[in-house]
Amino acid sequence: MSGLWYTEKQTENFGITMKIKQTLHTEQTDFQYLEMAETEEWGNMLFLDGMVMTSQRDEFVYHEMVAHVPLFTHPNPETVLVVGGGDGGVIREVLKHPEVKKATLVDIDGKVIEYSKKYLPEIAGKLEDERVDVRVDDGFMHIANSENEYDVIMVDSTEPVGPAVNLFTKGFYAGIAKALKEDGIFVAQTDNPWFKADLIREVQRDVKEIFPVTRLYTANIPTYPSGLWTFTIGSKKHDPLEVKEDRFHDIDTKYYTKELHKASFVLPKFVKDLTE
Amino acid sequence: MSGLWYTEKQTENFGITMKIKQTLHTEQTDFQYLEMAETEEWGNMLFLDGMVMTSQRDEFVYHEMVAHVPLFTHPNPETVLVVGGGDGGVIREVLKHPEVKKATLVDIDGKVIEYSKKYLPEIAGKLEDERVDVRVDDGFMHIANSENEYDVIMVDSTEPVGPAVNLFTKGFYAGIAKALKEDGIFVAQTDNPWFKADLIREVQRDVKEIFPVTRLYTANIPTYPSGLWTFTIGSKKHDPLEVKEDRFHDIDTKYYTKELHKASFVLPKFVKDLTE
Repeated sequence: MSGLWYTEKQTENFGITMKIKQTLHTEQTDFQYLEMAETEEWGNMLFLDGMVMTSQRDEFVYHEMVAHVPLFTHPNPETVLVVGGGDGGVIREVLKHPEVKKATLVDIDGKVIEYSKKYLPEIAGKLEDERVDVRVDDGFMHIANSENEYDVIMVDSTEPVGPAVNLFTKGFYAGIAKALKEDGIFVAQTDNPWFKADLIREVQRDVKEIFPVTRLYTANIPTYPSGLWTFTIGSKKHDPLEVKEDRFHDIDTKYYTKELHKASFVLPKFVKDLTE
Repeated sequence: MSGLWYTEKQTENFGITMKIKQTLHTEQTDFQYLEMAETEEWGNMLFLDGMVMTSQRDEFVYHEMVAHVPLFTHPNPETVLVVGGGDGGVIREVLKHPEVKKATLVDIDGKVIEYSKKYLPEIAGKLEDERVDVRVDDGFMHIANSENEYDVIMVDSTEPVGPAVNLFTKGFYAGIAKALKEDGIFVAQTDNPWFKADLIREVQRDVKEIFPVTRLYTANIPTYPSGLWTFTIGSKKHDPLEVKEDRFHDIDTKYYTKELHKASFVLPKFVKDLTE
């Protein structure tokens, strides 16, 4: 068919709409409704339960900002866990750090991995790397069963509906603290401040009760609601604002820079207010 | 009517869509197609030629960031000119600076002023202030006829189509340089880096040929294309990155902070590349 437009209602009363070249795949998996489409503006795009997950054109922002901020904050990140992130984009960025010896990906939905490999190869291509251990499993349970194991944990989840509901709870953050080594650090995507202010405030409050260093940073993701995305860091020791200049090394990126690493924590006033 | 959605095609293949409570006014003025509507998500909203200009809910970002960055950069901004900006939002922010003795607004379209006063009163309300001189006139010609007159000029234009085409030319920037005093500074909104990279690159190149200090900064505006908006500064002397701590004074804002003033110039790599 021609003339198709895909509209994501980001709230009850607002959304984005994009012209579709062709539908590539649709499937009700065991966990969510998966759609893959080729769009005119953003290239191939993955939707879960009607929400944009990633697109070929703007995926670099999210994946770079999830991975590089905590990885440059930790002085020697050897073991990394990615919860969710079945498209493989975060893993691709993680592998740019030579210190990383092993990166484990735990996504609950094997179909996301399967169709990302097929239709988003430049995003998912590094899932086959020898440093990567891919597991189709429940991230919440994986965390619950891990102890003192990871230097860095990255929570690359969907919104807190459907399979990701557990990943926005205080119990989950406590599990992460246990799964991390003594100087470990975690990051989670925590939605946007325009429509989900209460969620951000709640996550900040919960994480602060468990981690001595709690921070919020932002990035511009044009296909996500409001274009302004937040990421919450909980760290046992290392502060992303105190990274020494010689810790950074050259890395091939399109969004992240070492200057932006620190600037991304400087928040608009109405966002800063959510952290206080 | 109920069930109406307004869709702005921000590119040929991508747009935003929002539910409308009611249409408040539509009119083909002498210069552009003006629409005012009450939306469910963003409050009252002004559209010109089908493009979102401002909304009650997110207008503070644009207006604060246009006004406060150059005004805190200049050590004593007494005379200010706003070109365009008939909704009055930039003027409202300008007046928060006690140094400002006179603020002149020149908008080519009196209808924008008229209907902003009617439907966007908390944005346009300060246009009646005694420090403000409102003129319905051609901003390009006003600039051409001014010499050594302003400390700060702010170009709050529409996109470079229709009446604003002249406001994105090198001749206009040369006129601004002449209209500014010897240590004057100007700022212009310069669209977004995702869909208008060529425009930003071109403006940077043109402004650099005329102003010794040329800078680019960004802000998140959720109702504008991509959510990431850029502003170009051209300055004869004062550098927005070198503002001394004691220049800042407390100001009532929802987006701008003195920390964000400097951080907003730290650009994502693909945006920074447009300035080099």
